[in-house]
Amino acid sequence: MPGRKASKPKNITAIETNNRPDEWRIEQGMAGAKLPIIDQTHKPTTFIHPVDPSPPGIKDAEAIEAVGDRKKLFAREIKGWEGYVEWENYPEKKAKAHKILTSQTFPPIPDYMTGPIPGTNPVLPGEDFKAWHRAIGGELTDVPDSSWDTVLKEKHKDMLHLLQFPYNGEPPKRLVTAKSITPNPLHFVRNHGGIPLIDKDKWSLTLDGLVANPKKYTLDDIMDESRFPQIEEYVTIQCSGTRRIEQIALYGGQGDEVPQAPWAEGAIGTAKYRGISLKKLIKDCGGLINGGKHLELYGAETYFKDLNAMNYLVSVPWSKVKANEVLLAWEMNDEPLPKIHGFPLRVVVLGYIGARSVKWLYRIKAIENPSIAPVQSREYLYFNQQVGKHNQRPTDGIQIQEMPVSSAIMSPWSKHVIIHNGKINCKGWAYSGGGRWPERVELSADGGFSWYEVPQENMSKKGRWTWRTWEIDLPCDVEGWIEIVCRCWDSALNTQPLTVRSAWNWGLHVTHSAHRISVYSINKTRPRTKERLALLEKLNIPLAPITRYEVVPTMTDQEIEKYWEKHEPRDADNY
Amino acid sequence: MPGRKASKPKNITAIETNNRPDEWRIEQGMAGAKLPIIDQTHKPTTFIHPVDPSPPGIKDAEAIEAVGDRKKLFAREIKGWEGYVEWENYPEKKAKAHKILTSQTFPPIPDYMTGPIPGTNPVLPGEDFKAWHRAIGGELTDVPDSSWDTVLKEKHKDMLHLLQFPYNGEPPKRLVTAKSITPNPLHFVRNHGGIPLIDKDKWSLTLDGLVANPKKYTLDDIMDESRFPQIEEYVTIQCSGTRRIEQIALYGGQGDEVPQAPWAEGAIGTAKYRGISLKKLIKDCGGLINGGKHLELYGAETYFKDLNAMNYLVSVPWSKVKANEVLLAWEMNDEPLPKIHGFPLRVVVLGYIGARSVKWLYRIKAIENPSIAPVQSREYLYFNQQVGKHNQRPTDGIQIQEMPVSSAIMSPWSKHVIIHNGKINCKGWAYSGGGRWPERVELSADGGFSWYEVPQENMSKKGRWTWRTWEIDLPCDVEGWIEIVCRCWDSALNTQPLTVRSAWNWGLHVTHSAHRISVYSINKTRPRTKERLALLEKLNIPLAPITRYEVVPTMTDQEIEKYWEKHEPRDADNY
Repeated sequence: MPGRKASKPKNITAIETNNRPDEWRIEQGMAGAKLPIIDQTHKPTTFIHPVDPSPPGIKDAEAIEAVGDRKKLFAREIKGWEGYVEWENYPEKKAKAHKILTSQTFPPIPDYMTGPIPGTNPVLPGEDFKAWHRAIGGELTDVPDSSWDTVLKEKHKDMLHLLQFPYNGEPPKRLVTAKSITPNPLHFVRNHGGIPLIDKDKWSLTLDGLVANPKKYTLDDIMDESRFPQIEEYVTIQCSGTRRIEQIALYGGQGDEVPQAPWAEGAIGTAKYRGISLKKLIKDCGGLINGGKHLELYGAETYFKDLNAMNYLVSVPWSKVKANEVLLAWEMNDEPLPKIHGFPLRVVVLGYIGARSVKWLYRIKAIENPSIAPVQSREYLYFNQQVGKHNQRPTDGIQIQEMPVSSAIMSPWSKHVIIHNGKINCKGWAYSGGGRWPERVELSADGGFSWYEVPQENMSKKGRWTWRTWEIDLPCDVEGWIEIVCRCWDSALNTQPLTVRSAWNWGLHVTHSAHRISVYSINKTRPRTKERLALLEKLNIPLAPITRYEVVPTMTDQEIEKYWEKHEPRDADNY
Repeated sequence: MPGRKASKPKNITAIETNNRPDEWRIEQGMAGAKLPIIDQTHKPTTFIHPVDPSPPGIKDAEAIEAVGDRKKLFAREIKGWEGYVEWENYPEKKAKAHKILTSQTFPPIPDYMTGPIPGTNPVLPGEDFKAWHRAIGGELTDVPDSSWDTVLKEKHKDMLHLLQFPYNGEPPKRLVTAKSITPNPLHFVRNHGGIPLIDKDKWSLTLDGLVANPKKYTLDDIMDESRFPQIEEYVTIQCSGTRRIEQIALYGGQGDEVPQAPWAEGAIGTAKYRGISLKKLIKDCGGLINGGKHLELYGAETYFKDLNAMNYLVSVPWSKVKANEVLLAWEMNDEPLPKIHGFPLRVVVLGYIGARSVKWLYRIKAIENPSIAPVQSREYLYFNQQVGKHNQRPTDGIQIQEMPVSSAIMSPWSKHVIIHNGKINCKGWAYSGGGRWPERVELSADGGFSWYEVPQENMSKKGRWTWRTWEIDLPCDVEGWIEIVCRCWDSALNTQPLTVRSAWNWGLHVTHSAHRISVYSINKTRPRTKERLALLEKLNIPLAPITRYEVVPTMTDQEIEKYWEKHEPRDADNY
């Protein structure tokens, strides 16, 4: 694997710090990736220093050449399906792609786990994924550029692009809960590959595997109301990476961009979908046979895991399908599915992690056991805390299906300074998966000690599969920095753990602890505060930022002397 | 005050976020100073945006000119006392300096409270203090440059320079507790002004105010053993700003560089001082008279507060002096006092905050009440948490005298990754002021739940006025991120609050909460971890940084399938 090979780590026995200009930042844990590993398993202690990743562009040209003509090998699978390469039917093709990817080195991933998160938009570029597409070539060559074009066409101009390719984006905080139903251009996107551009008239869906009568459906077939009753359902879809930035800020995980994209609170959205129940289609194929118990869902995008190319595959259990909780949808908020959301047909699994709601669906295969494909069996795992980089096994993790109860504050933001009259206005969302709904939302202005319920009239409508947006005027007497905390109780009375630590896991999934923000409270109901604000206004001295020192003493020397005349002195004498 | 004037703050009613490339960072509280203040005291809510500080270099040249000849006005006070300007005897001179400073604008202070701490050494430059010196001119003109020369001559090359001028510096962590007695070049320095360079033969000390017989002493007088018995004392001096970076990381304060320098854990040091008890000198002057109860101590450096120039003045109560706990010292670790530490004579107040141990001492004045000078009455105040920028009064703060019990971990550092056999080696210091000493030091590897005592034989010698350094092999079974916490119990059984929040105050002083670091534990006593490390070594895959993803799956698809054959499926059926 030349892409991961590196020079032998050098061990030295003393830490050299002189001539390291950012020594102080490093010592304070602000540049963890620059630190050596300390080996205390023997005496003397040794230090294993970080090794730079292999430079990109190292190539075994001969080996790559020997693979064959990439244009032919990795050609478009079906006419009218731009960007779609079929992998699952061709193990040999997979092997060839793997050979190409392991015969060269690729751009390293920026260290956003223990280094600074880039102050750019897109935050992360996804250069490795782009390079893998181009290295495979053929139909994948233009996918990174074409996908970005689709982002710019379909998504709101203010989206926060966490990862340019494969595209991961969320709305800015002020827009996440601006409406209780998310407009399509603002709905978060968490793609695992490029966006296939599919001609709906050329599209078809294969249903095979352990069903009595395997069939192929056109879009017209599926939309034929005389065959399949249509369903309209309001559904919140949430990525299990939502609020991951809080875990990253506490402790880093393995910094792979796609599995561990640094989401804020916006990787959640609510839309009305129109489609049919997958159950009806299974019935139409004569039902499951020979132990068929899971439905494997195939997406047309190309995903990469451990330098292997594949289509996007996950599965859902028949029990979920049977309950009519797995939809095949072609409409989102009364419009045809946007291309970026899976046009022409996607899966929408009610109350499950977003990763199961496969886009660009082209095949459903009935199988006996849950999919062994990496997205199902190696990712979206919720590890226990004793699992780390060097002892984790995929089977240690709980495969994430239903999402637990969660909530987030969308306004104010951490580090906001708020002038108020004893109440601070807060807004946000709350959600619970699995058909449970937010029954109560509570906020605390004292770090989670005293809680105030959001008035029911300030919460958006209940729904079995949807979030609720909320608003509260939160009582706050305190002057200075406070911690506002938000938690939800769902219809089964589940609530959220109180600290990020309690939720932290090596995979950095499911940050569902109570959401905490620090804000600075200026309580104008206090006479002294009110007076001071009036004085600063009179002197035309700006209020913001509050961290700037102002040369306007609050007491004269005479006032200080007068105070001490009337009060006990600083240092006690014998009583 | 043109230095602080600014254009009228503009109020707008909507937050514009488009075209702000670092929107995501801002929303996550990583650039607080860019946020508007939210005014919720009326409807609709308005936003008060940060205003840039006045650009430096705006000057009312005429007003400055009218003050007079700066060379003459601000000349050297005494021959042989380079850099010493007397302010306290000349109120008119003070007024003229104030006029000069308020007739122009100066470089703004970098935002290190809510913005990034610079990754440079010096961390902060102190451009405003430098500019104030140059604006006053005369004897102060060359002080910034000459002081830095002294730093480079007298301090260890690896010092972390927190603030270049006035000089504030501390040793890097590996050197803070390398020896239980701090070598002079490594002793922290927290200066409030430039370094006066005083010819010891020209030096004298005036003792006046409320004493029977005011006198003037030469250094020979003071060192004359036939008049004053000499004392050798090991003393730990600590700045009340020690570990302030932990408060800053949580919540910012007013970001004035000198009062709120961003110290790490090294603003503490221990040395042997030789000198005399100030009590003997008071007696030599016939004792206190007319209600004299405090000793005001004058340092020759020039300090600035609210654009006023002054000498460095603080006071100590007679009760402290009477107990022989206030020394006048000329030797530090068997050498003449370094220039940067107060040559030729400094005060050393045992068990008090370092701010009372005045350097370049030239006058002691017996007074009735504690000093009204700003360092005593307006700074080094420990506010309660209901005191913030807009309601603080200096009299709300406890003037800091004795330092409370505290401790810190010097090794490992936050974000270190440690391979170990079930125990992690930790080192650090512990200290308590006021003549109390560390009696027990305890560490926790689980965030402060279970505590282990440092074996007494691993602690340095006890002393009434000194810290103790310590070392422990801390049991740790956990794999992954842990939080190591350290706390001390002093001889009076005082211990430390457990969280930074409990110690936080607007002045950002006295960060004496239990010291916490996050490290990643790789426990090699676990077979699976050991195996994996061996495999990575065999494959020549670097261990550091651990946040880099490695393409070496821990299980094959076959192993995953085998696991699920033997275990209950992910999703439950009816029992």
